[in-house]
Amino acid sequence: MTECAIEGVGISDDRLDGGSNEGETGEHGTLPVIFPNTEAPILKPIPHGGDLGEVMRRFPDAPKPWLDLSTGINALPYAVGTLPDEAWARLPSRDDQRALLAAAAQRYGVRDQATILAAPGTQALIQLLPRLVPKSRVAVLGPTYEEHQACWARQGHDVHVIDDISRARGADVVVAVNPNNPTGTLVKTFAVPNRLLIVDEAFVDLLPPEASLVPTLPPRTVVLRSFGKTYGLAGLRLGFAIAERELIARLREELGPWAVSGPALAIGRQALADDAWLTATAARLEHDGRRLDKLLAGAGFTPVGGTPLFRLVCHDNVPGIVERLGHHGIHVRAFAHAPDQLRFGLPGDGEAFRRLAAALGVR
Amino acid sequence: MTECAIEGVGISDDRLDGGSNEGETGEHGTLPVIFPNTEAPILKPIPHGGDLGEVMRRFPDAPKPWLDLSTGINALPYAVGTLPDEAWARLPSRDDQRALLAAAAQRYGVRDQATILAAPGTQALIQLLPRLVPKSRVAVLGPTYEEHQACWARQGHDVHVIDDISRARGADVVVAVNPNNPTGTLVKTFAVPNRLLIVDEAFVDLLPPEASLVPTLPPRTVVLRSFGKTYGLAGLRLGFAIAERELIARLREELGPWAVSGPALAIGRQALADDAWLTATAARLEHDGRRLDKLLAGAGFTPVGGTPLFRLVCHDNVPGIVERLGHHGIHVRAFAHAPDQLRFGLPGDGEAFRRLAAALGVR
Repeated sequence: MTECAIEGVGISDDRLDGGSNEGETGEHGTLPVIFPNTEAPILKPIPHGGDLGEVMRRFPDAPKPWLDLSTGINALPYAVGTLPDEAWARLPSRDDQRALLAAAAQRYGVRDQATILAAPGTQALIQLLPRLVPKSRVAVLGPTYEEHQACWARQGHDVHVIDDISRARGADVVVAVNPNNPTGTLVKTFAVPNRLLIVDEAFVDLLPPEASLVPTLPPRTVVLRSFGKTYGLAGLRLGFAIAERELIARLREELGPWAVSGPALAIGRQALADDAWLTATAARLEHDGRRLDKLLAGAGFTPVGGTPLFRLVCHDNVPGIVERLGHHGIHVRAFAHAPDQLRFGLPGDGEAFRRLAAALGVR
Repeated sequence: MTECAIEGVGISDDRLDGGSNEGETGEHGTLPVIFPNTEAPILKPIPHGGDLGEVMRRFPDAPKPWLDLSTGINALPYAVGTLPDEAWARLPSRDDQRALLAAAAQRYGVRDQATILAAPGTQALIQLLPRLVPKSRVAVLGPTYEEHQACWARQGHDVHVIDDISRARGADVVVAVNPNNPTGTLVKTFAVPNRLLIVDEAFVDLLPPEASLVPTLPPRTVVLRSFGKTYGLAGLRLGFAIAERELIARLREELGPWAVSGPALAIGRQALADDAWLTATAARLEHDGRRLDKLLAGAGFTPVGGTPLFRLVCHDNVPGIVERLGHHGIHVRAFAHAPDQLRFGLPGDGEAFRRLAAALGVR
């Protein structure tokens, strides 16, 4: 057992390699044209879970296949089945896009289909949004999924990480992941009027409906919903934005035609309409979550937070645990900003649970 | 038979609904922040081939299934086969991305893998490029695929359509589709030094290698290559940019992680390495192209141009032909800018050829 340090959180620009070039927007550079690639500060690569290549090279003798618990992606995916040939062969049609949006609107509680849009993953929207807003003071509630901060900084915005939503007062744009990743902390009230509010609800699917901003959608709010995590199909690349009609129309223009693939349209449409699968999945994840909690407690971890798809714990020897699990072919997620914390995705079956327990030396 | 009018081509802004707001970049708007969605002129929707929904509603009594000849997408796709579960379930890995790029580099004649990047369709790159360049004078060689002009105009650039590459002298950015769509015209030499040159080689795959700029890649040149057309998998969304390392690095940052789906990585990697399939496909398309030429000549069309994947013809009664084919459940592509021209994609098999011949009243 261990005491967890509470992370100090404030304005964090430790990922910036150089000074900010604020004001040098490249808008009126001298000709001939070059790409203004000196406009934004150079960012170091962002580490993410879910990419086994590097960890497999680090532990070449680990047993295979690897057990990847480094993400919050459901380990038991929605069954893809056989797709119609047209999903692969033809340009995605407007009718197919509308059918997907109808299913997503129903699933997420969106009343007006003109207020929802599909994208090839929410990451594509996270990349896009900072390009559509004048240079702003941006408050990111964090620490959180690092791409938000990085993408706003890349487009020359003045980005601050705040540790409480009440500190967003001086910002023009407020960004929150809700529930947060990796802590699972849920903000219940966003009192940030007259600001652009972006709420990434990547992990809200299996929480009670009132946890989402979608049903009450306040003005100037963009909600992001992720398909791949709950449905276990992260490779498909499918996500959604929900916002006022004008914002959605603008995003749609910027994404352009055929942004979402035919397979994503076909699978998303079917999966999002499948109530029985979601109900069964929620029950299984709740059961497995309790099982994981027990296992981790027995191995000496202290719970910090989590969502139905992952748990965040702390330990006084995280590097040792990562090393030990690596030698057993198990990949978990550590965090540079919180070196005493680990994120465990839920194992997908009894065999995965047994393998994790054995690696951690618990019954 | 009919005489074709030669289209007059010049500065074309007939798609703009309002005046340009040049200079109002939204960079320093008053707060609180709103999306600067009045920045760019509002554009009318761009018509594209390949979306049967509307034409099927227009001809409700037409025989089904429809024969869609409205695109330049190969009607006989590369066989998708069964994908590994991980392609759907996992976040696309860096190793898988590198394997795709290696296959694409080999296929396209790219020597340095740091000079090629994959995107979820070239359309995503067509949307992105105008955002990375300071407001410029842009010359689009046209008429051509309309998204180029539209995307540069949307980002506030000063866009002119030129009818000959020699008229690009006053431009900062030159955009050409080569071979052009729909005419098939091939520019052999781009003498546009000190300009950013964007060459969309969507239909170059089956032409002799010297038709492509990739092997000689001049400075400040971005070449776009499309996967879905030649391989008949437009729904997959896969395309490439080839350019100097710095430009590719910038584009990669802007697209972000996991831009290309797991299925696209897996299928693209296999298909691009399949020499035998491409050789057989090229031979079939050449044979079928000659068959289509003969059929169209017999039906009173005059050839205007084309590529191995489609033919452009003209006729003095295009609306009548479109109507007639529509009643037979056959969709072809007409053009507002050239009302006497039609584009025919190559029929994929003998049955499709017979159906087209019967609809046009030729043996």
